[in-house]
Amino acid sequence: MTENMTGATALHMEPEAALSEGQEKYFGICQEKLGFVPNVLKAYGFNPVKLQAFMDMYNDLMLGDSGLSRLEREMIAVTVSSVNHCYYCLTAHGAAVRKLSGRPELGEQMAMNYRAAPLDPRHKAMLDFAHKLTADPAAMDEADRAALRHQGFSDRDIWDIASVASFFNMSNRMAAAVDMRPNDDYHAMAR
Amino acid sequence: MTENMTGATALHMEPEAALSEGQEKYFGICQEKLGFVPNVLKAYGFNPVKLQAFMDMYNDLMLGDSGLSRLEREMIAVTVSSVNHCYYCLTAHGAAVRKLSGRPELGEQMAMNYRAAPLDPRHKAMLDFAHKLTADPAAMDEADRAALRHQGFSDRDIWDIASVASFFNMSNRMAAAVDMRPNDDYHAMAR
Amino acid sequence: MTENMTGATALHMEPEAALSEGQEKYFGICQEKLGFVPNVLKAYGFNPVKLQAFMDMYNDLMLGDSGLSRLEREMIAVTVSSVNHCYYCLTAHGAAVRKLSGRPELGEQMAMNYRAAPLDPRHKAMLDFAHKLTADPAAMDEADRAALRHQGFSDRDIWDIASVASFFNMSNRMAAAVDMRPNDDYHAMAR
Amino acid sequence: MTENMTGATALHMEPEAALSEGQEKYFGICQEKLGFVPNVLKAYGFNPVKLQAFMDMYNDLMLGDSGLSRLEREMIAVTVSSVNHCYYCLTAHGAAVRKLSGRPELGEQMAMNYRAAPLDPRHKAMLDFAHKLTADPAAMDEADRAALRHQGFSDRDIWDIASVASFFNMSNRMAAAVDMRPNDDYHAMAR
Amino acid sequence: MTENMTGATALHMEPEAALSEGQEKYFGICQEKLGFVPNVLKAYGFNPVKLQAFMDMYNDLMLGDSGLSRLEREMIAVTVSSVNHCYYCLTAHGAAVRKLSGRPELGEQMAMNYRAAPLDPRHKAMLDFAHKLTADPAAMDEADRAALRHQGFSDRDIWDIASVASFFNMSNRMAAAVDMRPNDDYHAMAR
Amino acid sequence: MTENMTGATALHMEPEAALSEGQEKYFGICQEKLGFVPNVLKAYGFNPVKLQAFMDMYNDLMLGDSGLSRLEREMIAVTVSSVNHCYYCLTAHGAAVRKLSGRPELGEQMAMNYRAAPLDPRHKAMLDFAHKLTADPAAMDEADRAALRHQGFSDRDIWDIASVASFFNMSNRMAAAVDMRPNDDYHAMAR
Repeated sequence: MTENMTGATALHMEPEAALSEGQEKYFGICQEKLGFVPNVLKAYGFNPVKLQAFMDMYNDLMLGDSGLSRLEREMIAVTVSSVNHCYYCLTAHGAAVRKLSGRPELGEQMAMNYRAAPLDPRHKAMLDFAHKLTADPAAMDEADRAALRHQGFSDRDIWDIASVASFFNMSNRMAAAVDMRPNDDYHAMAR
Repeated sequence: MTENMTGATALHMEPEAALSEGQEKYFGICQEKLGFVPNVLKAYGFNPVKLQAFMDMYNDLMLGDSGLSRLEREMIAVTVSSVNHCYYCLTAHGAAVRKLSGRPELGEQMAMNYRAAPLDPRHKAMLDFAHKLTADPAAMDEADRAALRHQGFSDRDIWDIASVASFFNMSNRMAAAVDMRPNDDYHAMAR
Repeated sequence: MTENMTGATALHMEPEAALSEGQEKYFGICQEKLGFVPNVLKAYGFNPVKLQAFMDMYNDLMLGDSGLSRLEREMIAVTVSSVNHCYYCLTAHGAAVRKLSGRPELGEQMAMNYRAAPLDPRHKAMLDFAHKLTADPAAMDEADRAALRHQGFSDRDIWDIASVASFFNMSNRMAAAVDMRPNDDYHAMAR
Repeated sequence: MTENMTGATALHMEPEAALSEGQEKYFGICQEKLGFVPNVLKAYGFNPVKLQAFMDMYNDLMLGDSGLSRLEREMIAVTVSSVNHCYYCLTAHGAAVRKLSGRPELGEQMAMNYRAAPLDPRHKAMLDFAHKLTADPAAMDEADRAALRHQGFSDRDIWDIASVASFFNMSNRMAAAVDMRPNDDYHAMAR
Repeated sequence: MTENMTGATALHMEPEAALSEGQEKYFGICQEKLGFVPNVLKAYGFNPVKLQAFMDMYNDLMLGDSGLSRLEREMIAVTVSSVNHCYYCLTAHGAAVRKLSGRPELGEQMAMNYRAAPLDPRHKAMLDFAHKLTADPAAMDEADRAALRHQGFSDRDIWDIASVASFFNMSNRMAAAVDMRPNDDYHAMAR
Repeated sequence: MTENMTGATALHMEPEAALSEGQEKYFGICQEKLGFVPNVLKAYGFNPVKLQAFMDMYNDLMLGDSGLSRLEREMIAVTVSSVNHCYYCLTAHGAAVRKLSGRPELGEQMAMNYRAAPLDPRHKAMLDFAHKLTADPAAMDEADRAALRHQGFSDRDIWDIASVASFFNMSNRMAAAVDMRPNDDYHAMAR
């Protein structure tokens, strides 16, 4: 594992335990399907407990059951990461938006300024909520939730929009704090 | 569970599955030791998978092995929550700082303005890092990590400072987005 | 008086004249009623003219005739101090809100984020005005006054809301500039 | 008095009591010396107690004994008012800087951007302190006071710099909140 | 030309070529009509190609055909320069507003805070647009253009409002970057 | 020309005059070399005088003689556009950085957060200057110019860094104000 971590971040840490069998398998699937193991997983991999907690939360949020499509969740991820200017997440999740939407320019619009994208009112409201929650969380109030309900989002959807936006406010800061570096492979993906 | 959730947030959601046995037990321990189940757990409790992911990450970060003491981690939590003006986290974790330090005024200083506290240079650097990571994540760079190393923090410590600060940037926003309400019991704790 | 001032701020100044008889008496009443002389008075006490000007303005604003209750004025004081992260004023006036309202959690909500408090529309408008006047005074315009009138505030009430909010923008900065330290006694008050 | 107040602010208030003899006399002196009564005095004049408190604090701060010259105090006033974009105070105190310095361009530089003025290091430090105290009071700390001491300012001087800067953070907001309008006479003064 | 440039900025540069005949003539007209050559022209004058490009754009924008009057364009210029605290542009274009409007106080209001001016709804909308475009360009969207159309502005007018506001965001920064100094003559103009 | 402009911006304007012969030729060269005419040129094309002024300034700045390489000028352009979240300029000039550097990831780093790029101290200083000039122009002072000189930049280089950064603060706002849309062709370029 040591060499795997090399270059993933600016920190120098020794692995504290071996990856679990399930984690090794997961890394193998990444290698096979994507052609690489995402550096965020290598970065957390120095400690299998931390890695597992990260993977469990991430996989539930981004891949689990939700009234939001996978693309919608990735659009939120990238919009949040744009506010925070997070190089890692814009690179990795910008690629995901391009891939899931089949529209390279949509990935760019989310990464650069979601207001430049031709969004329907539902998606506009969803990203406005994520943007405000990122930029000025102290100012959130009932009117922000009402704006989502007005566009047909259920309270469960609001939970999911909030969860994804909040998660990337964590991930963006983790990446900034340790200088996490995205795999080069993302750059050419789905262009 | 439904009634447990009542009042924990502004969202109306039905429980989607029963809590696991381990979760029920954990809630029981909270009730016994604290006298109540923290509302954040009730809020996530509508979905046991989400609850488990939250608990796993939280417990590892705040209670797991670390070069940072539990009090130091709570000081970071409250400093971050002060920037974000998060009523839930300031209330719950402000109480934790008061309790763990035995100094009520320290909890207040972290919640109001950490610069008002009489901090040694090591804690000052730790909280400066957490503050900047919260307020201006895009501006983080090597100099910020160097400032921590200069105060004797290891790279593993930097990971932990970053992780705790990042986690509360998530939790603060989740609380703001759904109007999470702290249990009244926190207010009088360790005054 | 010299020893009285010790510890009230980070500045070292000699008293420039003796307190007036009225001021000595006022300090005595504080000691008797509160159990201590508020450090802000000790801090200004190095110069009786400055102390008197401060007391005259403060007492008129916070205790004088007004369409606003004493509690409402304290709510404004704490909301303003929250924006400015003023340790001194949040401590002293947070205690006042707890005491005057009999609701400890209201003091905490004002200090942490007034949007978390269950406010009626009148109080919401009052604190929105105070918040904006604090955070972005250049943007105030007729619409802000109209919002207060719409909630039934008279022009005299608007003057008072403005005066209290403005005063604490002064006091917060004075406290920050000289590192004014609140008396420990406030922390446990009215919890 | 009623007609005197007309036009001084956007609020409509009846005088609540007659001006004191001393206040009437003071207004007379203003009229004689300046050619007009400053609108801020007319605005406060609806209530002689409030007027007196304002005048006492203002006159002590701006005209009383201090290690700072009257010009230095006006320079601070205008620098603060520039951050807050206060039309009233920039107009009235910009005129004062022009008059006291005999350098019209200095008044303009303070009003527009103090960094454009050719300041010696002592004045630069004084205005940097006032600027930061205005724009980001929560971030003030010992280093800010040390920078003033390094330029030869005493702790008493620091109190005065802080007091003047803080006072105008109050006055700027009061003017913004009630739309206080400067007398036209200021515009042509000392050009 | 070398001596002409002396003092116009903080940079030391040699002229790279002689002014063109047309430029020499233009400078002569400035000298004759204004009594001086504006320092911005002297500053760009080190390179006649750069000077010409600047003059061509400036003269088209500020003097060319437009649905906006020259005064309206100057009002936009000063409002933008106020947000950016640009000493050069506030001085030079503040003078232009005073001169073109015949109302010294209007120049001051634009320079200090356009919200303090008694504007009709059309001018209010025009300056609100220019202000937002300056302070938060990323947030511009269709609603901002709609607000201008609602006040009777054509799309061509919107182009011109946008162009003038954008141009001064360039000029303000150029002036700040090189410490461009306005000619003293502006200060007394049209008072 | 009318159809050429269709879709370039959100404004509806008729061409006011025919393009000059030179402009038609320039558009032809674009079409031939790039495969398309950049939408910014189509947008300005409604008025040949405005188009010419824009082209003259742009071509001198980005292609003319300078101590800065074309790549360095594009790096500044993209860094500025990142602060302003300008979709048009990030798309068009991000492509230019990718192409001129032959390093796709450098284009992405400039667009997302220049602090994530492995820059030498000279380029770091250059982009720090451009970033501050964009985000906080009022705070620029001699120390900022000194930092560039310290890295070996001449005063003429400082002029050019300032000019390019200032120009894109204009272009970013123009694009935001009229919703200028980049040609799709940029997205796939030099990936």
